[in-house]
Amino acid sequence: MKKFINHLDNVLVESLSGFAAAHADSVTLHLDPHFITRKNKAVNKVAIISGGGSGHEPLHSGYIGVGMLDAACPGHVFTSPTPDQMLLAAEAAHADKGILFIVKNYAGDVMNFEMAAEMLPFESATVLTSDDCAVINSTYTNGRRGVAGTVIVEKCVGSLAETGANLQACKALGDKVNSRTASIGVALTSCIVPAAGRPTFNIDDNELEMGVGIHGEPGRRRETMREADAIVRDCVDAILTDFKTRNFEPNKHEALLLINGFGATPLMELYLIYNTAAKLCKQQGIQISRSLVGNYTTALDMAGASVTLCLLDDEIKQHWDSPVHTAGLRWGS
Amino acid sequence: MKKFINHLDNVLVESLSGFAAAHADSVTLHLDPHFITRKNKAVNKVAIISGGGSGHEPLHSGYIGVGMLDAACPGHVFTSPTPDQMLLAAEAAHADKGILFIVKNYAGDVMNFEMAAEMLPFESATVLTSDDCAVINSTYTNGRRGVAGTVIVEKCVGSLAETGANLQACKALGDKVNSRTASIGVALTSCIVPAAGRPTFNIDDNELEMGVGIHGEPGRRRETMREADAIVRDCVDAILTDFKTRNFEPNKHEALLLINGFGATPLMELYLIYNTAAKLCKQQGIQISRSLVGNYTTALDMAGASVTLCLLDDEIKQHWDSPVHTAGLRWGS
Repeated sequence: MKKFINHLDNVLVESLSGFAAAHADSVTLHLDPHFITRKNKAVNKVAIISGGGSGHEPLHSGYIGVGMLDAACPGHVFTSPTPDQMLLAAEAAHADKGILFIVKNYAGDVMNFEMAAEMLPFESATVLTSDDCAVINSTYTNGRRGVAGTVIVEKCVGSLAETGANLQACKALGDKVNSRTASIGVALTSCIVPAAGRPTFNIDDNELEMGVGIHGEPGRRRETMREADAIVRDCVDAILTDFKTRNFEPNKHEALLLINGFGATPLMELYLIYNTAAKLCKQQGIQISRSLVGNYTTALDMAGASVTLCLLDDEIKQHWDSPVHTAGLRWGS
Repeated sequence: MKKFINHLDNVLVESLSGFAAAHADSVTLHLDPHFITRKNKAVNKVAIISGGGSGHEPLHSGYIGVGMLDAACPGHVFTSPTPDQMLLAAEAAHADKGILFIVKNYAGDVMNFEMAAEMLPFESATVLTSDDCAVINSTYTNGRRGVAGTVIVEKCVGSLAETGANLQACKALGDKVNSRTASIGVALTSCIVPAAGRPTFNIDDNELEMGVGIHGEPGRRRETMREADAIVRDCVDAILTDFKTRNFEPNKHEALLLINGFGATPLMELYLIYNTAAKLCKQQGIQISRSLVGNYTTALDMAGASVTLCLLDDEIKQHWDSPVHTAGLRWGS
């Protein structure tokens, strides 16, 4: 294992400290237990809080800021944060209109956020993201996994919360975005968790893992490495099949196409994937009117990428386009 | 070699096409010869044009847009673009106040941009970037190499050009930023150039290359892998020594600290590197008042990172902070 680390015990705190120092104008880091909040606390809005295991950066800490999250709770690498982190984050971020937790559907995260919600002295609700259409039930999951589509949920809900919308409206929008989003990922290599010091799974030089999870969990099947067009075609087919199962007709919607790198795949390849995926969508009559290409939900140093399609409506477009000011996603005034 | 590609001959065009499609609101792709321009051509300003071998994305195409570049000329992977690309880009982007080429100091790039400048029917000037303090003369270079500091040059010069400043002023600012910037990189793994299909260099599991170039060129020395703090200390020491050689006293300036990933290094590690580098700078009395952490000048799928320090003054700060609207760097209104 070759990584830029010092002692294994300090990886998370040193990385969080660097994040907080690099973005000292916009975030505040709290340690023991760890959570990160906006530097300038919002007033009179639903506080949007997310969290999960570290190693997926910029998710979630990188999405703290105006137009997106109020706070994030980073667990150790690929490990759920604990209820005390969530409780303290909620107390720090609460702005008189309740707390909305956005939680990727992994058993540990779900359990700990539920415990925190029960102990909270404030009104709260939870949006569970489950955009990964690769598999139902997985290593750490009952039901579908929450992956890169979570970024779209956090962006849209964060935008709505800034307007002063109430907790029920924010939860409803989050659930709607999640229900209209599907993702699937492909791994070319395993990631290496620092504490393990070796690859999470073995994969041959001529193989890929179709449907891999963002912790290196198994996907649908191990396949022989092929050209990008064939791989991307399988991803887009899986997503479109999933939408049909859920009674959506993708060609009746505009869509957001997100090509997400898992950490070690060059941007040059991600744009090549985008090129193929966008063409395939167009062939199916789907109008791609919003795009995002880059490393937005990573799996440490895994080589691979995921394709996400979100079926838009006017409300989702409005909240996707609205200004956002975070380390990982930034546009508008 | 496992990469998301189809036929080797088409990697560049397919990737550029994906880039142009994903950012269709802001850029226009021209093929044969290849160059990319802003979709909405600027008026009455110096046109800022960069270019170089592909594989360093988002450099340079990702920096086209208001506040930064007017056009970029992508060569094949790690290969200089040709004068016809530069000539056509200049003709397309020319906005009545001359052309400023920003060129990383590699022999092929320098020669081809010089040829283009000689053939141009417009007034032109060139800023050569040479921020890499690792080595003088290298595989592809006479003199110092231009690396991640080029992003800072492009940002500041692009900002000044938007104000209507003349060609001489833009060149002077570019030269000043370059003269106040120093970088050094470390590789943990080699990159793989698609056309070669194998690693550019061999490196053992317990080794790092200190001072590596962004094409995998040799650096100062091969070293035994160490903890991050020790590696980063050597990088910061090299940069501070370089500034002293150039008669700067870094502790008398505010500075911008850029931690740049080479393509396969997780953001979590880049922030850990930032944490150490910022502390070391502070110990030396240097006030880090601006920061940038992420993949901004990559080397395909190389695992590694570079440290860049730019000594600020009021003019550089103003132009760094000004709005920028590109795929790779975006802030302000």
